Amino acid sequence: MNTIKEPVFDVAQLAHVELLSPKPEETVKFFTDILGMSITATSGQSVYLRAYEENYRNSLKITESKEAGLGHAAWRVISPQALRRRAETVAATGLGKGWIDGDEGHGEAYQFTTPDGHLMELFYDVEYYDAKEDEKSKLINRTTKRPNRGVPVRRLDHINLFTADPGANTDFMIDALGFRLREQIRDNGKIIGSWISVSNLVHEIAFMQEPNRESGKIHHLCYWYGVPQNLYEVSELCRENDIFIEVPPNKHGISQAFCMYVYEPGGNRIELFGDTGYLILDPTWEPVIWEMEDVPGTGDTWIGTAFPESWWVRGTPLSAPKITQS
Amino acid sequence: MNTIKEPVFDVAQLAHVELLSPKPEETVKFFTDILGMSITATSGQSVYLRAYEENYRNSLKITESKEAGLGHAAWRVISPQALRRRAETVAATGLGKGWIDGDEGHGEAYQFTTPDGHLMELFYDVEYYDAKEDEKSKLINRTTKRPNRGVPVRRLDHINLFTADPGANTDFMIDALGFRLREQIRDNGKIIGSWISVSNLVHEIAFMQEPNRESGKIHHLCYWYGVPQNLYEVSELCRENDIFIEVPPNKHGISQAFCMYVYEPGGNRIELFGDTGYLILDPTWEPVIWEMEDVPGTGDTWIGTAFPESWWVRGTPLSAPKITQS
Amino acid sequence: MNTIKEPVFDVAQLAHVELLSPKPEETVKFFTDILGMSITATSGQSVYLRAYEENYRNSLKITESKEAGLGHAAWRVISPQALRRRAETVAATGLGKGWIDGDEGHGEAYQFTTPDGHLMELFYDVEYYDAKEDEKSKLINRTTKRPNRGVPVRRLDHINLFTADPGANTDFMIDALGFRLREQIRDNGKIIGSWISVSNLVHEIAFMQEPNRESGKIHHLCYWYGVPQNLYEVSELCRENDIFIEVPPNKHGISQAFCMYVYEPGGNRIELFGDTGYLILDPTWEPVIWEMEDVPGTGDTWIGTAFPESWWVRGTPLSAPKITQS
Amino acid sequence: MNTIKEPVFDVAQLAHVELLSPKPEETVKFFTDILGMSITATSGQSVYLRAYEENYRNSLKITESKEAGLGHAAWRVISPQALRRRAETVAATGLGKGWIDGDEGHGEAYQFTTPDGHLMELFYDVEYYDAKEDEKSKLINRTTKRPNRGVPVRRLDHINLFTADPGANTDFMIDALGFRLREQIRDNGKIIGSWISVSNLVHEIAFMQEPNRESGKIHHLCYWYGVPQNLYEVSELCRENDIFIEVPPNKHGISQAFCMYVYEPGGNRIELFGDTGYLILDPTWEPVIWEMEDVPGTGDTWIGTAFPESWWVRGTPLSAPKITQS
Repeated sequence: MNTIKEPVFDVAQLAHVELLSPKPEETVKFFTDILGMSITATSGQSVYLRAYEENYRNSLKITESKEAGLGHAAWRVISPQALRRRAETVAATGLGKGWIDGDEGHGEAYQFTTPDGHLMELFYDVEYYDAKEDEKSKLINRTTKRPNRGVPVRRLDHINLFTADPGANTDFMIDALGFRLREQIRDNGKIIGSWISVSNLVHEIAFMQEPNRESGKIHHLCYWYGVPQNLYEVSELCRENDIFIEVPPNKHGISQAFCMYVYEPGGNRIELFGDTGYLILDPTWEPVIWEMEDVPGTGDTWIGTAFPESWWVRGTPLSAPKITQS
Repeated sequence: MNTIKEPVFDVAQLAHVELLSPKPEETVKFFTDILGMSITATSGQSVYLRAYEENYRNSLKITESKEAGLGHAAWRVISPQALRRRAETVAATGLGKGWIDGDEGHGEAYQFTTPDGHLMELFYDVEYYDAKEDEKSKLINRTTKRPNRGVPVRRLDHINLFTADPGANTDFMIDALGFRLREQIRDNGKIIGSWISVSNLVHEIAFMQEPNRESGKIHHLCYWYGVPQNLYEVSELCRENDIFIEVPPNKHGISQAFCMYVYEPGGNRIELFGDTGYLILDPTWEPVIWEMEDVPGTGDTWIGTAFPESWWVRGTPLSAPKITQS
Repeated sequence: MNTIKEPVFDVAQLAHVELLSPKPEETVKFFTDILGMSITATSGQSVYLRAYEENYRNSLKITESKEAGLGHAAWRVISPQALRRRAETVAATGLGKGWIDGDEGHGEAYQFTTPDGHLMELFYDVEYYDAKEDEKSKLINRTTKRPNRGVPVRRLDHINLFTADPGANTDFMIDALGFRLREQIRDNGKIIGSWISVSNLVHEIAFMQEPNRESGKIHHLCYWYGVPQNLYEVSELCRENDIFIEVPPNKHGISQAFCMYVYEPGGNRIELFGDTGYLILDPTWEPVIWEMEDVPGTGDTWIGTAFPESWWVRGTPLSAPKITQS
Repeated sequence: MNTIKEPVFDVAQLAHVELLSPKPEETVKFFTDILGMSITATSGQSVYLRAYEENYRNSLKITESKEAGLGHAAWRVISPQALRRRAETVAATGLGKGWIDGDEGHGEAYQFTTPDGHLMELFYDVEYYDAKEDEKSKLINRTTKRPNRGVPVRRLDHINLFTADPGANTDFMIDALGFRLREQIRDNGKIIGSWISVSNLVHEIAFMQEPNRESGKIHHLCYWYGVPQNLYEVSELCRENDIFIEVPPNKHGISQAFCMYVYEPGGNRIELFGDTGYLILDPTWEPVIWEMEDVPGTGDTWIGTAFPESWWVRGTPLSAPKITQS
């Protein structure tokens, strides 16, 4: 009988992200007042937040730090046994760091780093948000009422990491965790960026080439609206409140998502998605390969003006490299 | 070690649907001129069509018939071995019909019926659409250029079937094929409708109670736009071209999708989706259970006017029942 | 030399409206928290409000009253001499009430009633809103920053009055004040509704037949957004905050404006406009005449479901008639 | 009695524009296939077109010419006597050229040039478009059905002319024709651009500084949609059909209109409006004065990226100046 290698479905979703901020109060205020998120816990130097349609206790942790950047990214798996299986495959790569007891909103987690050094974790046990009676919406598939503050985002969408070697990081996520390659930019064969996913989304994570081959930076974190026009509404609030808009609302070529980019007051780049872009339902999807020369003005934005240079070179932390890989 | 029962990921997507039409030329014209689809093949009394962003050769087969209704619905699986596995579980239920060699655009398929008698098939081998040079878009994740005709849909989204017993059909799809229950309407404990999926969509298929307990009818077929405003644009074309709009653009409560319903000239109800609604990324999603009394004006439409009675009672074929189950 | 009768351009705009409310605090809260307006003055039993792009001190006066309804509607004229001219033509009809010194935000005004008894006034001297430094936007054609509260409306658009005799009221506004007839509904020759304007808008005021031939009621007051999607955003806030939506977002046939209707907590019907509809630039515009039988499902809404009966029969005050004209 | 100088209301609207094209067939194809307009007449080297909601026979004349540019712009006045009055005031400036018998779609017209040399005309007698039965829409305030071709524009909106001296041209239009100043850009007191109107629109015409002080060029012609999202739809068609997008969809600061700019195949810049921007209903509107240094990134686009240099320097004809004024 004809057979093919089947995908691994153990990792289900990007569940939460920790951002570092040198101005934590202002960063939190951006997420609550402009993006309409709510604080669900504070602990030590960290504040935890959720969007109104998210069913877990939190999707974002803001931690005070000398510099902006990524704290960690966390993936939820489909079962306790899937957690053991993935911990084993990660451990086998030598990039495992070991188990922690958990954090606000989730139980035991297996920590590891990417080849580039970004801290990540896998977990299964999660706490659902327990809405108070007066927070509940008559729209019962919505965890809490839509807030009347800012232009409220609905859920965490994805992260994009700058790395010294996008190809190596892509391979690690595919081999150890079961990600599938969806779109990729190449320049004379060299991998410049990869968009990979474990779901029908084009990506939960992308890796892009840091131009100086620096490691450990985050390019951006993205929250999702689902309504393209919402990007214009939140843009209004950004202009009125002096939040810098790096890329105004437009449609990506890669992923086809309706998007925009701002810098939160702590310095991290935040993307906002106005729709889902296209979804990948085909189980044998052939990756879409872009030549770098075709990306500006088409791959970055299908209907727009080629992205500014800052978008290609600026990650956080802004300062010197941590580890340069060879 | 703590374990849970893991989901089955064998079925990947709703790949194509066959609709029956007593006015096949007018039905095809609706899909090409109003919804911007293209004819990719004709064979016997059937015409095959695809939407411009679909990568397979076709997603819709229109077959001439005395009455409107469903021909069959086809599911693509993730691998040849998944095809064997699912054929076995279906055969074990006694609802299997056996193998066919294939059809325009796909290879061998295993046919079966639902408990209600709706014809379905499973297949793996698929033909990708081979775009001519002048059809190709510079947006390389789009199979062919966006047509300048109608308001062009982007891909097949889901089907909704009327059944004599929604609960039994839901159980069959979950048990034999690995679907997961996402939302459900109950009336004093009786299941009135189920929204189930194998992907991050809230549903690729729904089963709703046919009010006279008739079997084998289709409630609607849905294509996806991804831009809410597109529903207003296609509504304009429908009004100008005398296509009946049963439910104007609005937002569903169940699934939260931005939607509308029209009748194609052959009589089948067609839904159009302006966005994806919410996506389910949580691998242990707890089904959302609606009480029937809360559905009109909230579950059918969150921001709108309760759906008309026709929406609850009219399926195709319009005529008498085929099989009434006890 | 060929000549025609030239229009009169003395009346420029609907400048403000006074609404009566039996629940003034809740009514004000609706306009501030849901529609994002600001309080600019309070005086006696009245509160004055403005929208963020309005350049006058106020466009809305909410006055406590036993019943909901219209206090008065005020028109700004182009010059002091235009004020005298129109006061004279109105006085000549016998409907003039005389001069008042002014009110919060404007100077002397000439008061009168329509044939139906609705109180109106004409004025020229107006106070512009004096924005504080920190309220000013970098978008200098916007009087104050877009607020981060509710889905903020941009300006007053129009009023619609229920009358015992739409034809007589239409004639009065045309003859005495220079309005032009834009669209009209007739039923076997009888005038059921008129949409009239002094600007490029299809209407600043409409008169519709009160079904019991009662006088003095208001059908609705309308504020303008300019972005169709905003109606969906404000609908979300209305559903979450138990504001009744009588007609969900859709496109009017008459005027082609994207619209919706809600009841403010005091009971008055409020319309929200998502765009301007079409504008009339043709100086010799031929009025568009609808037959009543064509209105439901086309004239009321071009893409939607015919308006509910309440829309045709309910005005405020809800109680018994004041004056029934013969 | 206190009095003020009253405005002149003789000129009502921009009624049609003649564009010159070195590639007339391709230019016409752009307006018919991408913008959905219809050809209503051909005469000599000219083709006449209208948009589906326009009630006159045409709003655009495309004339074959060696170079792209403006043929003429035509204004409709409110009455025959207004035509005489304005012809007199124009003649008194020395810029009158005299009467012509008319053209396709209108009667006698008075021709003149602006100080910069742009050809214009005033007329009153107009031919309304006589729709055939099967062209008529059930939406009776729409002259003809919405076409199923391109993303159809609804009506002509405005023109923007490059001039050697924006101040002088602004003064001429105000003094001779009754335009009102709405917004203006100044650079150390020098007038860089003026937006002026005779209606509630922010402008039917703008004059901007040609950077080399050349005369007679057109900056752009604008058609109106009324739905912001339509700009994204037409952008898709432009990208798929190789129409150059100079400025992607975004929101102007000046006028607040949602806009985009493309080059039609003949070389003229075409703007598309997705809404009306704000309307000016205040009869004593105080002009909004921008300092040039605040315009890039705020006045050109409120939510976007500062316009490219080409937008500030490129007009048609592209070639050498015709008349340089001192």
